[in-house]
Amino acid sequence: MHSDRVVVVGAGPAGLEAARLAAELGSPVTLIEKKDVAGGMPIHADYAALTHHFRPASEAMAEMIDAVTSNDLVDIRTGTEITAVEGSAGEFSLTLTSNGSTQDLDAGAVIVATGFQHFDPGRETQQYQYYEYEDVITIADAEKMLKNGTFVTPSTGKPPERVAFVQCVGSRDRQIGNEYCSKVCCGISSKQAIEIREMVPDARVFIFYIDMRMYGYWENEIYWPAQEEHKVNYVKGIITEVLAKNGRLVVRGEDTTMGRPMEVIMDVVILSVGMEPSAGTRTMADLLGLPSNKYGFIDTDHDILDTVTTTVPGVFVVGAAVGPADLDDSISSAGAAAAKAVSMLRNAKVTV
Amino acid sequence: MHSDRVVVVGAGPAGLEAARLAAELGSPVTLIEKKDVAGGMPIHADYAALTHHFRPASEAMAEMIDAVTSNDLVDIRTGTEITAVEGSAGEFSLTLTSNGSTQDLDAGAVIVATGFQHFDPGRETQQYQYYEYEDVITIADAEKMLKNGTFVTPSTGKPPERVAFVQCVGSRDRQIGNEYCSKVCCGISSKQAIEIREMVPDARVFIFYIDMRMYGYWENEIYWPAQEEHKVNYVKGIITEVLAKNGRLVVRGEDTTMGRPMEVIMDVVILSVGMEPSAGTRTMADLLGLPSNKYGFIDTDHDILDTVTTTVPGVFVVGAAVGPADLDDSISSAGAAAAKAVSMLRNAKVTV
Repeated sequence: MHSDRVVVVGAGPAGLEAARLAAELGSPVTLIEKKDVAGGMPIHADYAALTHHFRPASEAMAEMIDAVTSNDLVDIRTGTEITAVEGSAGEFSLTLTSNGSTQDLDAGAVIVATGFQHFDPGRETQQYQYYEYEDVITIADAEKMLKNGTFVTPSTGKPPERVAFVQCVGSRDRQIGNEYCSKVCCGISSKQAIEIREMVPDARVFIFYIDMRMYGYWENEIYWPAQEEHKVNYVKGIITEVLAKNGRLVVRGEDTTMGRPMEVIMDVVILSVGMEPSAGTRTMADLLGLPSNKYGFIDTDHDILDTVTTTVPGVFVVGAAVGPADLDDSISSAGAAAAKAVSMLRNAKVTV
Repeated sequence: MHSDRVVVVGAGPAGLEAARLAAELGSPVTLIEKKDVAGGMPIHADYAALTHHFRPASEAMAEMIDAVTSNDLVDIRTGTEITAVEGSAGEFSLTLTSNGSTQDLDAGAVIVATGFQHFDPGRETQQYQYYEYEDVITIADAEKMLKNGTFVTPSTGKPPERVAFVQCVGSRDRQIGNEYCSKVCCGISSKQAIEIREMVPDARVFIFYIDMRMYGYWENEIYWPAQEEHKVNYVKGIITEVLAKNGRLVVRGEDTTMGRPMEVIMDVVILSVGMEPSAGTRTMADLLGLPSNKYGFIDTDHDILDTVTTTVPGVFVVGAAVGPADLDDSISSAGAAAAKAVSMLRNAKVTV
């Protein structure tokens, strides 16, 4: 039996946008979210400002959530997981599980927006002593502090004098198995560096990088101001280890521009961790029979110029479930998937 | 009088995708293209393979054009320009000019997909002697040769022994006025380097760069294979001038990793030129009253998480008319704009 319903899995930025647009195009939408609250990573990981024009994440996400909750065509089911899938395009049957009880839901199309998780810097390599030293944190940890409005050295509670970002932690790394670039970490670190400099004007902030991937307008909107207005120090170099010494941290590595080893004292070291597929992304790939790449992200159909269509008819994938994605990628691909899901269902109905 | 019509301006990848999807969502679409043939830059600039999985550009674009021409809801007007605009969202009135005669067309929404043009390496700076030396070419010139299947030193017609790419020509450059990064040139140069190595296996190929912006999967899909399988040589350095000497080219600059001046002999120097707004993008901004940024690209509404909505109601902008964009950006944003334009018109009609 043909279903008009578009089911969107995951209520982060991409899922919220896909749900809103599919509903605005007239389709009934059910938005499934495993967590109890919508908003995705920007809300659950307590993001401060977005790299998208430094808007407060909570404000931007509240607008997106409101656009969906105020639309009668969208049924939001938080605290709910998809645990089984049957059928095919136009007539999927999904089993939803919530608080131990299950329920069936028909769906004409499914949009997977299950996103990413931050690389765990204790996995496989522990060279940066993330679990050892309190003052070694990740960009996700730093966001929480920035959101609270006070950036301090965790072990002392005092403002740091020297802060270092280490780029490409869990990215561009064959040993770890993540050869891809996570795309957004250069932008996020630079944004955080600016925020730290504004919050702790006496702190010196360093970013140790391989290539600064400040593509497009991030170059002139974030990278140049970081250097010129906010005096963030960018050092092309490889950091090999972090050690503790006299209550502070020693960062060891090689300054590749100067061509010499370096050993510098820091109060806080921020690991710029990359993206890996979320558990939800892996689960949905399994349930829907979607091919994944070697990293566990969902594959799109590479034979066409199309960012969202999978090889399973009726199933679309958006945002970081496909691989490293910035917010613009997530929002754009969500819109494209909404258009494709709705038009597929309309045209199928006309034909039948 | 309310119009259901979506007018898409520009029949490159973004415009074709927007037109196709708006029509598949049920809206009548008129696709306006200034040139006599659809396909945009990949066709008019004779692109060889796309960075998107190395598919032949002509094949990929033929599919996109076919999807639009085979849809009865799309009226394609090639050799046609918009020369005047009146009215507002839901009831625009456009003046079309073709072969000297004019015609009026109503439009409910307008999607601007007028794209970019390649930076002219003779503009303002002539340090690389593009107009002086036959063997100094651009990545656009190189694409034409690669498409023809024979990559040669232009002045001799023989296969080159040494080829150099110079990155960031017309990008990341305050003197020229383009502080932004053009986003795609690192990927395109790396793709071309691989193609040259396959076509001329004895040639040595060098890429002189500031940062290699091989974001996301370009890192593992293009950048790593370029180095490991195809032995492309990446040199972090600044090229300051190109000179002629004994029938070959001398490339002078600084190897920033080695920290020393360099002077190397090349047969062909390929300037990796960036993106600037096309004439059509500037014209449409004027006609539609769209704010542009200082570079002449059209501004979107930065207060919302939205990549395509402008500050003029009923007008959307997609692809590289907004700024540097890769093909995935163009295709995704086109889908998002189609969804937004169609839903805006539907919901306006319901309300009225």
